[in-house]
Amino acid sequence: MSQDGGCYTWIWTCFFEYSTPKILLIRSRKVGAINRFIQAVIIGYVIGYVCVLKKGYQETDTVLSSVTTKVKGIALTNTTAMGLRVWDVADYVIPPQVPTKPEKEEESSFFVMTNMIITPGQNQSHCPEIPSATANCSSDGDCMAGFSDTRGNGVQTGRCVNYSASAKTCEVLAWCPLEEDVDPPEPPILAAAENFTVLIKNHIRYPKFNFSRRNILPHINSTYLTNCVFSRTTDPDCPIFRLRDIVSEAQEDFQDMALNGGVMGIQIRWDCDLDMPESWCVPKYTFRRLDNKDPENTVAPGYSFRFAKYYSDGEVETRTLIKAFGIRFDVMVFGKAGKFNIVPMLLNVGAGLALMGLVTVVCDWIVLTFMKKKNIYKEQKYSYVDDFELLSEEIP
Amino acid sequence: MSQDGGCYTWIWTCFFEYSTPKILLIRSRKVGAINRFIQAVIIGYVIGYVCVLKKGYQETDTVLSSVTTKVKGIALTNTTAMGLRVWDVADYVIPPQVPTKPEKEEESSFFVMTNMIITPGQNQSHCPEIPSATANCSSDGDCMAGFSDTRGNGVQTGRCVNYSASAKTCEVLAWCPLEEDVDPPEPPILAAAENFTVLIKNHIRYPKFNFSRRNILPHINSTYLTNCVFSRTTDPDCPIFRLRDIVSEAQEDFQDMALNGGVMGIQIRWDCDLDMPESWCVPKYTFRRLDNKDPENTVAPGYSFRFAKYYSDGEVETRTLIKAFGIRFDVMVFGKAGKFNIVPMLLNVGAGLALMGLVTVVCDWIVLTFMKKKNIYKEQKYSYVDDFELLSEEIP
Amino acid sequence: MSQDGGCYTWIWTCFFEYSTPKILLIRSRKVGAINRFIQAVIIGYVIGYVCVLKKGYQETDTVLSSVTTKVKGIALTNTTAMGLRVWDVADYVIPPQVPTKPEKEEESSFFVMTNMIITPGQNQSHCPEIPSATANCSSDGDCMAGFSDTRGNGVQTGRCVNYSASAKTCEVLAWCPLEEDVDPPEPPILAAAENFTVLIKNHIRYPKFNFSRRNILPHINSTYLTNCVFSRTTDPDCPIFRLRDIVSEAQEDFQDMALNGGVMGIQIRWDCDLDMPESWCVPKYTFRRLDNKDPENTVAPGYSFRFAKYYSDGEVETRTLIKAFGIRFDVMVFGKAGKFNIVPMLLNVGAGLALMGLVTVVCDWIVLTFMKKKNIYKEQKYSYVDDFELLSEEIP
Repeated sequence: MSQDGGCYTWIWTCFFEYSTPKILLIRSRKVGAINRFIQAVIIGYVIGYVCVLKKGYQETDTVLSSVTTKVKGIALTNTTAMGLRVWDVADYVIPPQVPTKPEKEEESSFFVMTNMIITPGQNQSHCPEIPSATANCSSDGDCMAGFSDTRGNGVQTGRCVNYSASAKTCEVLAWCPLEEDVDPPEPPILAAAENFTVLIKNHIRYPKFNFSRRNILPHINSTYLTNCVFSRTTDPDCPIFRLRDIVSEAQEDFQDMALNGGVMGIQIRWDCDLDMPESWCVPKYTFRRLDNKDPENTVAPGYSFRFAKYYSDGEVETRTLIKAFGIRFDVMVFGKAGKFNIVPMLLNVGAGLALMGLVTVVCDWIVLTFMKKKNIYKEQKYSYVDDFELLSEEIP
Repeated sequence: MSQDGGCYTWIWTCFFEYSTPKILLIRSRKVGAINRFIQAVIIGYVIGYVCVLKKGYQETDTVLSSVTTKVKGIALTNTTAMGLRVWDVADYVIPPQVPTKPEKEEESSFFVMTNMIITPGQNQSHCPEIPSATANCSSDGDCMAGFSDTRGNGVQTGRCVNYSASAKTCEVLAWCPLEEDVDPPEPPILAAAENFTVLIKNHIRYPKFNFSRRNILPHINSTYLTNCVFSRTTDPDCPIFRLRDIVSEAQEDFQDMALNGGVMGIQIRWDCDLDMPESWCVPKYTFRRLDNKDPENTVAPGYSFRFAKYYSDGEVETRTLIKAFGIRFDVMVFGKAGKFNIVPMLLNVGAGLALMGLVTVVCDWIVLTFMKKKNIYKEQKYSYVDDFELLSEEIP
Repeated sequence: MSQDGGCYTWIWTCFFEYSTPKILLIRSRKVGAINRFIQAVIIGYVIGYVCVLKKGYQETDTVLSSVTTKVKGIALTNTTAMGLRVWDVADYVIPPQVPTKPEKEEESSFFVMTNMIITPGQNQSHCPEIPSATANCSSDGDCMAGFSDTRGNGVQTGRCVNYSASAKTCEVLAWCPLEEDVDPPEPPILAAAENFTVLIKNHIRYPKFNFSRRNILPHINSTYLTNCVFSRTTDPDCPIFRLRDIVSEAQEDFQDMALNGGVMGIQIRWDCDLDMPESWCVPKYTFRRLDNKDPENTVAPGYSFRFAKYYSDGEVETRTLIKAFGIRFDVMVFGKAGKFNIVPMLLNVGAGLALMGLVTVVCDWIVLTFMKKKNIYKEQKYSYVDDFELLSEEIP
């Protein structure tokens, strides 16, 4: 056509060309109704699900959080090993440092000792090993000098000595006297820990929205803070928690858990819709036991570890070995905030509308397969170019 | 048409059928110009924003990092409780371990004690409680044996004794003498901590690209390392930081912060374009105060915790209780690296080009609504099949 | 057409209108074959890559994990500083607490001391500084009272004293005697640590699927657990690892690593297809050295830190300074689980099918450019509306 107008004209023509698909408009009640119905479903989905339910018009951000914890409480114990003794924070929170984990970690944990097996006055010397398959002996020949069992307490000296009136075991070089292999004391030594309280200070930030907030809400004053204790019904905003309440909110018994130790999760959830008033953005506290208290779990149930306090009189070093049982509290902060933003809104609405393409596919299939007048529609919709050699004589 | 060639022919025909939409080509300056302009905008967006700005042709990876810190410095103090005393790393970095956090955590922190309230020579005995609403008394009747206030320091014995010449408080069984309830000493005891230095070794890895790098850059030799101190202007690559500089880079005053303690963030950012020379991939250090120094924050401002050192002469256990104030430094490593990869490039360019579909929608709307010759275009673009009963007589 | 039926009729008509593109069907062996081939490639990609390889029909979740570790073992050492001495867990695992990191962190680490430089009996007093550029002196004039070098050990008193028969250094107020600046002892003092074992208890959870599992598999009983040691060939399910095996699996030598310390990664991978039987979901253990043992890395290689144990006889405080070298083991848990879900399946299949749009683009290009009969096709596919003034006389 225009190609004979010279090269210049041809480029000119090409540049100003606009191609648009040719459309067949079918005016029919049935087809139209199906068409509009499917369109309505898709628009309903975009508005209802994407916009209202999923808040697709919002930009979201996940929480950055920092947590500080401060435990308070005093316990009085009366044991044969130590006599009457008072325990304060520096004694039962181990390691001593009240940990504040940094922003990127979103969690913090502290350990409160609730029970213990104490072995005071240990020093490096010789004593009989605790009876076991590898330690029992009847004569020196059963013991091997220098041998140390991985599950034993020391290095054998090669001698077989009396462990008790009835049993003989190999002598070991070890921190003697050895810790006795017994179950933790019942009731737990620091049963009074159930009345300890912990102040949890949590500062969160949504960096995308430059939004900060603390779990000590604006209406909380310092008089209230020095007296309140969290209670889901009466004091839901108080950031001071009694340990027993934390455990019982998780449907557990504190004294049971204190015996062998365990791990409790303190979950703080900050889900905020920043299109709403700021005061609606409040933390929700939930509590959950994290370790497995499965009775089949016979391998070292609970939560315990050993540590020692070392003393020296300048010549001999002695230590007090403590097998500590207790509850580790993990403070975990979760959260997602959303705020209106034009970009995700356009993206989500756009993606929703792209589904409109489905309408044609479905309607075409219905129209060309099930409608009585399908042949009329086909004739109008399709043109044909036949190019088969074997069929060529059939082309009109 | 060809269906009468039998079933075989019909399948054959179907299989070798190709359907393509029929297109109306409009050759018009106005329409063409609009068409090309919208196309140019979309291509410009794809190239400019997706490819150049967002580097959509790159595969990205986030950093894995491990951090080691080593604090150095000596401080001399002269207090009534301890006399003249020298403090070294093992004394003021708590817990003692220089922490190296593993790869997946991307952060590491260490605490430097800057101020303290020391209560030496505590042992389990009786002494009057610190005056408070629940501890003040006038006679033994005001005190309850066995009672322990959560905010108190011990378990009451039931006796009311002289706390001072003017005040009487309940006697408690506790670690006596009790810690005095005073503000931290001013100026801070370890004010000299501002001159301490910390060596931060940071090793990063981009696992997808098998790319590793250290913040001790290749041109740094060990002579330089033993003498340099980070300075944004003169020594921007030195990984040794003076604590005062860290704090002042964050627009804070070290002595202010040392008094009550606080939390400082040391942010190391590794944003690398791995299509560029490797030597361009260098860390950027920024410093930020992380805790809230809000004056309204009356509830335990700063950063402090209590710990105790236990001593024993074999019979009586004594302890030195230390309420430590100090600065926790959180080293946080961030980073993203990109490298050319064909897959994300195709994906991004493809998604960009999918926008081309918009051109037809917009142009169709303009052409069929605003152009003078819109009826000519409509006639050509649309065919009609009318199927309304009530309109059926109108169909030509 | 129907617009003359009044406003009501017009809306009616519009509402029940359905527009579908007009299609040209080309029946040709060549074009059809190309068309079907490209379709087959895309369907093959969707089924083969998206569905089978990438399991696009599955919803995925990442693992939440909690880890507990328990080290066991006894070592016997014989040094001049301490004589014959037995070391147990409370002595060589630092900090004492066996750490269990909470669910969100996915990792846990413990440090086993393997070598050390011990300086017992330090107390606050005067002694000559370790020789160095700033500490060497020939007379009191070279020393400055009150000066403390960041890299030194104490605060100078201003006097120049004999360090040895041949060298004089400034006297410092410090914890004396000072730690000698020597290389770590070789062979490592706690070389026997290679036989220590660690029990790693790992409990994982896929919250989306409410699926939990432990690395102590159901078929493991407690008798087996007390005796087994992990071995890739004979005991691949035993969760007790000998430290030497961990190091040698990573192609490293334990004694080499024990000398200066280092960091080992214990990676537990839980990749589970939850459409398969639950018993197929088992952990895979791999081991890797994490720190850089690069010989060029002359700045403080290995992994070491200083800590002190404090003693007091009631008047003078003494401490034992320990520079500990050792191996930090980082337990890292990775994992992804997938389970059939209709939503991601539809999304992935849909996205795959959207690629079908490419078929038309490619085929059109081939048909209209390379086929002999391209002009016939063009005539059928395109209609033209020419609207150029300068070309208007050319329009037929």
